[in-house]
Amino acid sequence: MRRSVLKLPGGVVHLLQSSGYKVSPLLIRMSSAAASQLRMDNLNPHVIKMEYAVRGPLVIRAVEIEKEIANGAKKPFQTVIKANIGDAHAMGQKPITFIRQVLACVSLPELIEKGNYSSDVKAHAREILDHCGGHSAGAYSQSNGIDIIRKHVADYIRERDGGIPSDPEHIMLSGGASESIRNVLKCFVNDEAPKKTGVMIPIPQYPLYSASIEEFALGQVGYYLDEDNNWSLDISELERAFKEGSSKYDVRVLCVINPGNPTGQVLSKENIEDIVKFAYKHNLFLMADEVYQHNIYAEGSKFHSFKKVLTNMGEPYSKLELASFMSSSKGYMGECGMRGGYVELVNVRDDVFAMYKKMVSAKLCSTILGQTVMDCVVNPPKPGDPSYDQWLKEKTATLKSLKERAVLVKEAFGSIENITCNPVQGAMYAFPRIHLPPKAIAKAKSLKQQPDFFYAMQLLETTGVCIVPGSGFGQKEGTYHFRTTILPQPDVMKDMLDRFKGFHTKFMKEYS
Amino acid sequence: MRRSVLKLPGGVVHLLQSSGYKVSPLLIRMSSAAASQLRMDNLNPHVIKMEYAVRGPLVIRAVEIEKEIANGAKKPFQTVIKANIGDAHAMGQKPITFIRQVLACVSLPELIEKGNYSSDVKAHAREILDHCGGHSAGAYSQSNGIDIIRKHVADYIRERDGGIPSDPEHIMLSGGASESIRNVLKCFVNDEAPKKTGVMIPIPQYPLYSASIEEFALGQVGYYLDEDNNWSLDISELERAFKEGSSKYDVRVLCVINPGNPTGQVLSKENIEDIVKFAYKHNLFLMADEVYQHNIYAEGSKFHSFKKVLTNMGEPYSKLELASFMSSSKGYMGECGMRGGYVELVNVRDDVFAMYKKMVSAKLCSTILGQTVMDCVVNPPKPGDPSYDQWLKEKTATLKSLKERAVLVKEAFGSIENITCNPVQGAMYAFPRIHLPPKAIAKAKSLKQQPDFFYAMQLLETTGVCIVPGSGFGQKEGTYHFRTTILPQPDVMKDMLDRFKGFHTKFMKEYS
Repeated sequence: MRRSVLKLPGGVVHLLQSSGYKVSPLLIRMSSAAASQLRMDNLNPHVIKMEYAVRGPLVIRAVEIEKEIANGAKKPFQTVIKANIGDAHAMGQKPITFIRQVLACVSLPELIEKGNYSSDVKAHAREILDHCGGHSAGAYSQSNGIDIIRKHVADYIRERDGGIPSDPEHIMLSGGASESIRNVLKCFVNDEAPKKTGVMIPIPQYPLYSASIEEFALGQVGYYLDEDNNWSLDISELERAFKEGSSKYDVRVLCVINPGNPTGQVLSKENIEDIVKFAYKHNLFLMADEVYQHNIYAEGSKFHSFKKVLTNMGEPYSKLELASFMSSSKGYMGECGMRGGYVELVNVRDDVFAMYKKMVSAKLCSTILGQTVMDCVVNPPKPGDPSYDQWLKEKTATLKSLKERAVLVKEAFGSIENITCNPVQGAMYAFPRIHLPPKAIAKAKSLKQQPDFFYAMQLLETTGVCIVPGSGFGQKEGTYHFRTTILPQPDVMKDMLDRFKGFHTKFMKEYS
Repeated sequence: MRRSVLKLPGGVVHLLQSSGYKVSPLLIRMSSAAASQLRMDNLNPHVIKMEYAVRGPLVIRAVEIEKEIANGAKKPFQTVIKANIGDAHAMGQKPITFIRQVLACVSLPELIEKGNYSSDVKAHAREILDHCGGHSAGAYSQSNGIDIIRKHVADYIRERDGGIPSDPEHIMLSGGASESIRNVLKCFVNDEAPKKTGVMIPIPQYPLYSASIEEFALGQVGYYLDEDNNWSLDISELERAFKEGSSKYDVRVLCVINPGNPTGQVLSKENIEDIVKFAYKHNLFLMADEVYQHNIYAEGSKFHSFKKVLTNMGEPYSKLELASFMSSSKGYMGECGMRGGYVELVNVRDDVFAMYKKMVSAKLCSTILGQTVMDCVVNPPKPGDPSYDQWLKEKTATLKSLKERAVLVKEAFGSIENITCNPVQGAMYAFPRIHLPPKAIAKAKSLKQQPDFFYAMQLLETTGVCIVPGSGFGQKEGTYHFRTTILPQPDVMKDMLDRFKGFHTKFMKEYS
C-alpha cells in the first residue's frame, strides 16, 4: 500500500485561517486532498483484502461493454451474455404467477377485494396482512420475521424431513440466505481468544464464505472437493484440513454447500452421515447451505437435509448444532431481487440463541415483501386449490428446463478439446476445468493475471460471454476452471456455446 | 460469565464408541449437552455486549403481554400501545396510494396493462422494470442499486440542495438507512492499527450506533446534547468529547443525527457550519443521519442538509468527506417494512469508494421492491400528473397530523408533575425527563435495574404502554428519561396519555 507523500492535516489550514492568515487556494487544495480522512492506508484492511469474484472485475467490465454497445461501439458481438451469476429472471426465466399475485395483493390490499384473483391467492395475502402491524407490509415485523410465516417455514421443513419436528421459534427470516450466513459466521468472531476461529469451507466454494470470513477476520480452513470423483467430499480430506487448520486456528465451524456451488454435486445420505460423524468427533458447528434443495437433476440423486440425516442418526449426533440456510432466490422461483431467505437453528443453546436474536434486532427486520415471497415458497398452493394446477405447471416446466440445460452444458463443455466437465447433478452451475497450455499461463503471468482470469477476460472481450474464473472460488494449485450458470434460455445457451467454442479453439491455437 | 463445569468433548464419546465400547445414554447426554460448540463463554463477546434498546427486554415483554391477552389473561388494560418504535403503519398510518400502486404494478407487471391506474403510475412502474434484469423485480440489481433509481435520488438531492450537483455514481441504495450506516462504520474498523477508531456519537443517540460500534469493536466517543438548551449541539462539548476520546482512541468519525433521534431537535444552519468547522479542524469523517428530513414541525425550524451547508461554505470545508443517509421508513411515507434507503458518499476518494462498492457487492443487492419505494419517495408525482393531487393531499395530511401530535405530546408530558419535556421540533419522538424520587431509584437498584427501566417496566405491566427507557439511548449520569414516539393516532394517543398520567401519579405517590 502506498501512502500519499503529503499529508497536511486540515487543522493546520484551519489554524492559519482562524489566526487571520490568508491561505492560498493551492495550499488549501493540497491540504484537503492530502487530508482525506479515509484512505487506502487506514481503510479497514479486511475490506481491502476481501474478494467477491461473482461481482468482480470481469462483471464490472461486462457492464461497461454493455454500455459501450448501447452507445454505438462496434464489437464482434451484439450482446453480452452474463453467465456469471445465478440470476434466473435476468436470464429470461418467468416469475411464478402465484407468487406475484400474492405480492401484488399484499402491496395493494384493495386488490384482495377488487382484483380478479383466485380465492387461495386472496386468502394467502389476507393471512399475511393479518399478521402485519396495522395490516400493512409497511410495518416492521419482529426481527426474526412474521410469526405466521415462520410457522409455515417450520411446517415446510417438517414435511420435507418426513415428520421431524421444526420449531417456528428457531426460524429466523432474513434478506436472502446471505444475511443469515453472515449472521451465523459473526457469532464465531472472538477477538479476545488466543486464536482466531477457523471456519472449514469447501474449495471450490461460493465466495460469500471467503469474503465474509475475511471481512470478519475469521480464519479460512479450506478442504478440497475431489474433482476426479465428481466433486465428492472425502472424509480423509476433511481430517487433513482440520489438522492443518488447527495448527493456526481454533477450528469450530464446518460449512457444507449441498447441492454444491460452484461444483453442482449432490451429497449422498451416507456421505452426509460421515460428515456428521466427523463434525461430532471434532465438536464442530455445522453450517449447511441448502439453498439449492429444489435443484436436483441427476438420475439417482436426491436431496437429503443435514437436519433429517443427523436427527435420524440418533444420539449423540442428533444433538449436534446446525444452521441450515434456505433462500427464495434459487429453486424454481429464482426471485433473487426479492431478498427472501431464512435460517433454521437446530440444537443451539437457549442463551446463545437469545444473543443471536438480540444481534439481529439492531437490523430491525428483513423486508416484508421478501418474507411474503418466502412464504409462497414454503406454503404453495395445495392440490385442489384453484391456483394449484397453474403453479405446478410453471414449477415443473422451469425445473424440467433447468434439468435439460444441466445436461446440455455438461455435454457441450465436455466435448470441447482441453476442457473436462463433471456432470451437473444439482444447483445452477457447471465448473469445467480448462487445461491451459504453458504459453497461455506464461502470458497471463507476464500480465500479472491469474491464468484463468486472463482466459475469461479474453473470452469476454472477444465474444461478450461473461463467466467467472475458477480462481475466484478456489481450486487446486496448477488447475484452472471457470464457473458458468446453466441459466441462459435454450436459444441464448446455444449462442453462448457457439461463441465459446469459437473463442476456445482460437485461443488454444494461439497459445499452443 | 459462568463456564459449564463439565465439558466432555464429543470426540471422547466418539472414540469410545468407535473402539467398540457401549456408552451409556446418560454419558452421551452429559457429553453432548456439555459439548455445545457455541456457548456464552466462546460466543462473539461483542454480540454479548451490544444492546439495542428499541427492541430490548421491554419490547419482548410487550409482545408476551399481547399474547397473554390474546389467550384470555385478565389485565387492567385491553391493548398494548407500542410507542417504542418509529413504526408508523403499525400505529395506523395509511400508506401513500401512489407508492402502493407502483409497487403492485412492479410486482405483477400485467397490472400495467390490465389495471385501472393513472398513466403516471404505469409510466413509473414501466421505467423501473425497463431497468431491471429481464424486466423483472426478481432479478438482482447491481450492488449499488438500479441505475435509474440512483439517478432519481441524485436529482432529488440536487433539487433539495438548491442545485448543488449530486452524482448518481456516489449513491448506494441499501436495505433501509441502517444497512448503509453499518457499511460506512465498517470502513473504520482497523484491527491492525495501534488504537481503535473512535466514533463520536450524540448522547442521547439512536442505539443502532452504539450497537454497531460495539459489534464492530470500534470505540464509542459520546458527546452530550444540551437538554437545557433544547438538546442543542454545543461545539465546546464536541471539543471536550474529542479530547477525552483521543486519549483512548484514534477519533476519526463524527456522527450527527438531524433531526434528532430520540431528542427531536432540528439543527440551525449556523450550528451545522460550526460542526463542519469542527470536523475539518480535527480531520473527521462526517456521518449525517438525515432520515427525518421530511419531519420538521416547529415554527422557524428548517431542514439544512450537511451537504448543502458544507458545499456553500466553500473550500476547504466543501471538500470534507461526508456520508448522508436517507430512508423510506420515516417522513410521510413510513414504509418501514419495505427496507428502502440510501447513502450519498461525498468527497470520498475514488480508490476508497471502489473498495466500498466491493464490500457491498458480497451482499448482492438490496431488495428491488424496497428500491422501488425509495424511487417513489425521491421521484413523486409532479404538478399536473394525474396522481399528483391525491399524493399531495395524503402527504400533507400525514405531516399535518404528525405536527399536531408533536405539539400534543410535548404539552401533555410537559404538564405532568416531575416530568419535563423539550419541544419536538422534528423527527418522530419526544424524550421527556422523569425526575424520579430517591425511593424509586433505591428500589430499582435493589432489583439491579436501571431506574428508568424499572419505571418503564412498571408502566408496561400496569398500563400496557410500551416506551423505551432513556438508559437505552444514553443520558447524563443521574438523569432519567424515556423515549416515546408521536405515532399513536389521536384517539390512541389520548388513551395512552391518560394511562400514563394515571400510572405516573400513583408511582410518584408510592415512592415519594
